[in-house]
Amino acid sequence: RPCLSMLKLEPLRSLFNPTALTCFYQTLREWVAVESDSSDVSKRPELHHMMNLTADKLRSLGGKVEMVDIGLQELPDGKSIPLPKVVTAQFGEDPSKHTVCIYGHVDVQPAKKEDGWATEPYNLTDINGNLYGRGASDNKAPVLAWIHTVEAYKALDMELPVNVKFLIEGMEETGSNGLEAMIIAQRDTFFLDVDYIIISDCGWLSRRPALTYGTRGNCYFFAEVEGPKQDLHSGVYGGTVIEPMTDLIGILDTLISPSGKILIPGIREAVAPFSDEEWKMYQDIEFDMENYKEKLGVKDLMYNNKVDLLAHRWRYPTVSIHGIEGAFSASGSKTVIPAKVTGKFSIRQVPNMDPATVKKQVTEYLHSVFAKRKSPNSLKVTMIIGAKPWLADTQHSLYEAGKEAIKKVFQVEPDLIREGGTIPVARTFQDVTEKSIIMLPIGGFDDGLHSQNEKMSRYNYIEGTKLFIAYLHEVAQIKKV
Amino acid sequence: RPCLSMLKLEPLRSLFNPTALTCFYQTLREWVAVESDSSDVSKRPELHHMMNLTADKLRSLGGKVEMVDIGLQELPDGKSIPLPKVVTAQFGEDPSKHTVCIYGHVDVQPAKKEDGWATEPYNLTDINGNLYGRGASDNKAPVLAWIHTVEAYKALDMELPVNVKFLIEGMEETGSNGLEAMIIAQRDTFFLDVDYIIISDCGWLSRRPALTYGTRGNCYFFAEVEGPKQDLHSGVYGGTVIEPMTDLIGILDTLISPSGKILIPGIREAVAPFSDEEWKMYQDIEFDMENYKEKLGVKDLMYNNKVDLLAHRWRYPTVSIHGIEGAFSASGSKTVIPAKVTGKFSIRQVPNMDPATVKKQVTEYLHSVFAKRKSPNSLKVTMIIGAKPWLADTQHSLYEAGKEAIKKVFQVEPDLIREGGTIPVARTFQDVTEKSIIMLPIGGFDDGLHSQNEKMSRYNYIEGTKLFIAYLHEVAQIKKV
Repeated sequence: RPCLSMLKLEPLRSLFNPTALTCFYQTLREWVAVESDSSDVSKRPELHHMMNLTADKLRSLGGKVEMVDIGLQELPDGKSIPLPKVVTAQFGEDPSKHTVCIYGHVDVQPAKKEDGWATEPYNLTDINGNLYGRGASDNKAPVLAWIHTVEAYKALDMELPVNVKFLIEGMEETGSNGLEAMIIAQRDTFFLDVDYIIISDCGWLSRRPALTYGTRGNCYFFAEVEGPKQDLHSGVYGGTVIEPMTDLIGILDTLISPSGKILIPGIREAVAPFSDEEWKMYQDIEFDMENYKEKLGVKDLMYNNKVDLLAHRWRYPTVSIHGIEGAFSASGSKTVIPAKVTGKFSIRQVPNMDPATVKKQVTEYLHSVFAKRKSPNSLKVTMIIGAKPWLADTQHSLYEAGKEAIKKVFQVEPDLIREGGTIPVARTFQDVTEKSIIMLPIGGFDDGLHSQNEKMSRYNYIEGTKLFIAYLHEVAQIKKV
Repeated sequence: RPCLSMLKLEPLRSLFNPTALTCFYQTLREWVAVESDSSDVSKRPELHHMMNLTADKLRSLGGKVEMVDIGLQELPDGKSIPLPKVVTAQFGEDPSKHTVCIYGHVDVQPAKKEDGWATEPYNLTDINGNLYGRGASDNKAPVLAWIHTVEAYKALDMELPVNVKFLIEGMEETGSNGLEAMIIAQRDTFFLDVDYIIISDCGWLSRRPALTYGTRGNCYFFAEVEGPKQDLHSGVYGGTVIEPMTDLIGILDTLISPSGKILIPGIREAVAPFSDEEWKMYQDIEFDMENYKEKLGVKDLMYNNKVDLLAHRWRYPTVSIHGIEGAFSASGSKTVIPAKVTGKFSIRQVPNMDPATVKKQVTEYLHSVFAKRKSPNSLKVTMIIGAKPWLADTQHSLYEAGKEAIKKVFQVEPDLIREGGTIPVARTFQDVTEKSIIMLPIGGFDDGLHSQNEKMSRYNYIEGTKLFIAYLHEVAQIKKV
């Protein structure tokens, strides 16, 4: 039952009356109630149910809906279970109009009340206008906001200004298993007439609306040092063997300086120069350093001015050491010499770094550092993820349309921002379909994605829907080439 | 039913006839069958049963046996369960004779077939003269060998040449919970007439019998670096905060050089000089470097000559880094910036190091290294264990008696060795009772203590019993002062 169909056809603004709003919240509430946690295979029926709900919703609005089988997921125990189907939908196929494809996902991160949630995570709860629930902001409300957008045009009995396609998946939180193959398979069918791809799977930086034009990639490394053939008692054997942990700590310590400077030769040199225009753009961004510091709970940030801080968050590489597998990691004490230890670290990628080059640089550097130790142990360096960064042109008409829509709905200029994290699907879309992509977020800066007490504010949900309605109108103005 | 009581009284050597030997093995088999794992509270009834078996055995030989209540064990969940009682026994109280106290334990390390045992760990299995089973060498066979010793004198209808006391505990493998308080409480009662304490809870270095005259102590440290108030996503936040892992890796890397040299000022200076006599003693020890290297499965040892290697195993300090709590330690990849990480390392203690001084040296050094990093994170250094080393005088009459007994039974001079690990009870006995202590091992060098496929050879079990019989005779020759 579409939320807006029962309303009289009135001008756009009157669509958002109390009855419609209640209906919007109710739909989000129903979606959040489905525990569509893609990381927990025991929740797979819920996830399938979520894909069906999504398809039903799109179908009820008259979309041409398909549920695309993307095959099986192999489990660690060797068994296989079906992946959630990808939902595609199409509204309109007027060749004189642009065609946009909305990407989104309806699976969620795990959540349990006892992790520290103030409310039941799958029971959407309104506290002071914030709607708390797992998946509310990531990514169920944005997907619904796009569906409400189609609904709004329908309720107004207005033709959609552009053809609208949807591609909604259910495995995003665990790495979009099966999606790339599906995109490749449908490059010359589903994607053939698509002009633009819109992703609304991110958030603003502050209370000011934003357009996102870049994400960092990521190269994830394992550095494995192996020595004795089994763990040894440190009392009995300590002093007679060069311990793998000592070697591993030693080489990990050569990755970054205390102040955060990357020491691997060639990495910093590959970064695109920070231009004056870029500096000015960063300067204009609304960002509260004190608030950020307080939110993280640190005494000092790595940089104490806004431009440097944001630049190192978005457009410079970083090394993070995540942990060590194989060493003693429990509470308490254990007098062990671990025989084989694997250090795990990753390097965020930015233009013009290239994962293949980074792999070579890191591997050669660590082996050279290790060789100097003259250790009898052995080192193996592996890059297990090599995701490229993604960067859009903020002067592109897709972005100009975004700026215009934001100005109309919010009466402000948007912040032009990047994401420090990686959204691999953006890069996949770009590489496979060669279409232009925009990230048009409506999530709040403090929505707590992947964290306890995730929320979506009523304000962002509803004003975000209005933004999407306006955005389609602006995209329609782009001159067709 | 004592093993030797049914035999005719014959000369000592004829005591060890096939019937007696079968009975000895059978007793060890019964003891190993009891899963007296002190670390697993669900096995507590088995452990209590084991203490009762021990008491019964000693009582059956006419000992004055007591089961000493040492109170409760507090569990992590706040509940308490009774500790296994300590079994004490006394054979003879002739004030004209010396009194020895035999210390041993009948609890064991955990063991499961699926950990990689070739046989059922609690089903003693003879393979080529080796008796495989958990606790066989550590410490059930040695305790039984001492009981058989008393039995032998009884079977021969000979008076024990010294008064013999037993102190057998059931919590050794988890830190001898409750024992120190018991020793302190009985210092002026049970221990009043004790002259010498004998510990047989260790092993030889090679196939040559050995006397153990030293153990290293251990100072165990936690270095906790704390930054953000919660774990952060490394994509979203990497580059804006100084990561606690970077700091921790940085300070851990300043503890030891690649070749194993301890870099903490003052530590190496405190070590007692290596004398020429000591050097000569080490030179005489039978030790197969190639075999040791092969057993550990390393390409090279830290030192490539016997004296340096053994000296660094026994009489020099070592730093071992055991692991990091709070970082990512599972398999796979996780893009996390851990908010609070605790590095765990320990420094083996030797004469003349002092744990209180070491604590100060390590704490000050790490704080000074950390201060140079100018990190906004905070560091907390804690010493959670501070166990002193133990060292005996190898010229002491207790050791001379040992050399004599070994010569008589094995026709060789013993190796004079140390243990790299810590046997805290030795130090406790010394500090509380001020009695002289000897470690008189009968375990083999390859018994696999704490490991899969622990074993005791028939040879060591039986010849070890003969050694103990001879040793009591030698101790009786020590001039009473």
